[in-house]
Amino acid sequence: MKMSEAGVATVGTVIPFAGWMGSVQARMERALARLLPAPGISPSRLHDAMRYATLEGGKRVRPLLCFGAGELAGALPERLEVAACAVEMIHAYSLVHDDLPCMDDDVLRRGKPTVHIEYDEATALLVGDALQSLAFQLLAEHRLADDPAVQLEMVRALAVASGSRGMAGGQQVDLEATGRQLTVPELESMHIRKTGALIRAAVMLGAACGAPLEPDLRARLDRYVSCVGLAFQVVDDVLDADASTATLGKTAGKDSRSGKATFVSAMGVARAREFTEELLREAHAALAPFGERALRLAELADFIVRRKF
Amino acid sequence: MKMSEAGVATVGTVIPFAGWMGSVQARMERALARLLPAPGISPSRLHDAMRYATLEGGKRVRPLLCFGAGELAGALPERLEVAACAVEMIHAYSLVHDDLPCMDDDVLRRGKPTVHIEYDEATALLVGDALQSLAFQLLAEHRLADDPAVQLEMVRALAVASGSRGMAGGQQVDLEATGRQLTVPELESMHIRKTGALIRAAVMLGAACGAPLEPDLRARLDRYVSCVGLAFQVVDDVLDADASTATLGKTAGKDSRSGKATFVSAMGVARAREFTEELLREAHAALAPFGERALRLAELADFIVRRKF
Repeated sequence: MKMSEAGVATVGTVIPFAGWMGSVQARMERALARLLPAPGISPSRLHDAMRYATLEGGKRVRPLLCFGAGELAGALPERLEVAACAVEMIHAYSLVHDDLPCMDDDVLRRGKPTVHIEYDEATALLVGDALQSLAFQLLAEHRLADDPAVQLEMVRALAVASGSRGMAGGQQVDLEATGRQLTVPELESMHIRKTGALIRAAVMLGAACGAPLEPDLRARLDRYVSCVGLAFQVVDDVLDADASTATLGKTAGKDSRSGKATFVSAMGVARAREFTEELLREAHAALAPFGERALRLAELADFIVRRKF
Repeated sequence: MKMSEAGVATVGTVIPFAGWMGSVQARMERALARLLPAPGISPSRLHDAMRYATLEGGKRVRPLLCFGAGELAGALPERLEVAACAVEMIHAYSLVHDDLPCMDDDVLRRGKPTVHIEYDEATALLVGDALQSLAFQLLAEHRLADDPAVQLEMVRALAVASGSRGMAGGQQVDLEATGRQLTVPELESMHIRKTGALIRAAVMLGAACGAPLEPDLRARLDRYVSCVGLAFQVVDDVLDADASTATLGKTAGKDSRSGKATFVSAMGVARAREFTEELLREAHAALAPFGERALRLAELADFIVRRKF
């Protein structure tokens, strides 16, 4: 892996990836705990449930990508953490709504009962709705860029990524696809919206917190995150086909049982694995002009493709 | 009604309220049709359902208040219509989610089958989610104020009004109150969030599209909209207790059947009517320093309190 070797070789003080990741994850946990409504504030059941849905959960892949892109653009960590919290709240809301009985009807998420099981369906619905509002509130009320016009562009980017032509639209396509096999291009098109759009927003918001990038470099970053976003989903499908429920912390093997089209069902598990490695190479190639500034993004691509959970 | 008499007496060209309201409503219908995703665009079932949920519906009370406040602040109509569409999309999303089986479980809205009846529950969930995203997208991608920082403040205001301490929080309080009688102060506190916050946002966003108001006048406007927002809900409760399903275009009398606390159950129908007239007088008094610039807001207060549907 060229980028990270370069990074480690030339800068003696660079901490290993695992340490960097752990520190971003710990920072995110503190930031989310601070930026979510305090548990005692009325309506406390809703606020408790919002915290339950968001805290102590997940690998924080989107925040890590946001921080990785922000470091590349020289952004301040106190700005990055707010942008990353906004993205993570959109992600958390989407999980709460996806788990509802009328969607995936799942009872387990990140090793814990899903929100509608722990609380109730109506509360889970409102948790998702209120987390979405809070994400936009954060982007608007904290200073994230020197130019407020850049910050408005961040609001727009997150809204587009979340909406009917992004994440919510991908969910709808996914619902309509249940029970029929999709082609690989159809799967790609679905996942570019369903998971790719928000992953892309994480990177673009992180970069927007820093110094403006030239259009060519911006396009490079876009290419990188397109590959990583797609690889993320293919790896998810491979893991779902392979792993046990205990390892994943969510119900495993349910894609094939529920008749959902996946990259594994479309191309077989061996080819799907190969595909992730191709996407990884392309992601690294896209980062080349950034040099060692892209160390964390390069490491994150490896982490996302080679993770076992 | 002092304001409107003054307005009509001194400006010969002022069109009657009904004509003004009709023209704003027609303008809003065109603006919503243009700003919603076109029906043919994929995912077309979601986009169709978003249009079904938003178009041809309701009195557009929030947009009317937005335009009324905008006229007071000298705002351009092409800015006001975008701000008003954002507020109306939040309102439309909240109705779609409120009607879901896990919430009010209602089958009729504005004389038509609710979205989860006409489409399905999963689509209705996503319609609400995507309408919320689109509202924030609109506020960020159109030029609504000369200063982008003012526009960020508009995003923040709409997010706070929609979130856990605004509309979604009010819904949660409402859910938890079902089956027990609330006191009048408890009811006021619930409705300040549930319906009042978004009505207030409509007025504040409309004013923000125009010339900045002095703090004292801003406080006056806030006082006006607090009275109107509360009166709106009290009138709703009175109408629900009185009216037939055919007149309302939604299932009537269901508040008392479902054991929901209302102003009618808390104070009786005669006192509730009196209360709306007191709030109306207070709303008019708050507008006094604006003179005839507040004509439409004064007329809207009358319309909201004296409406029969």
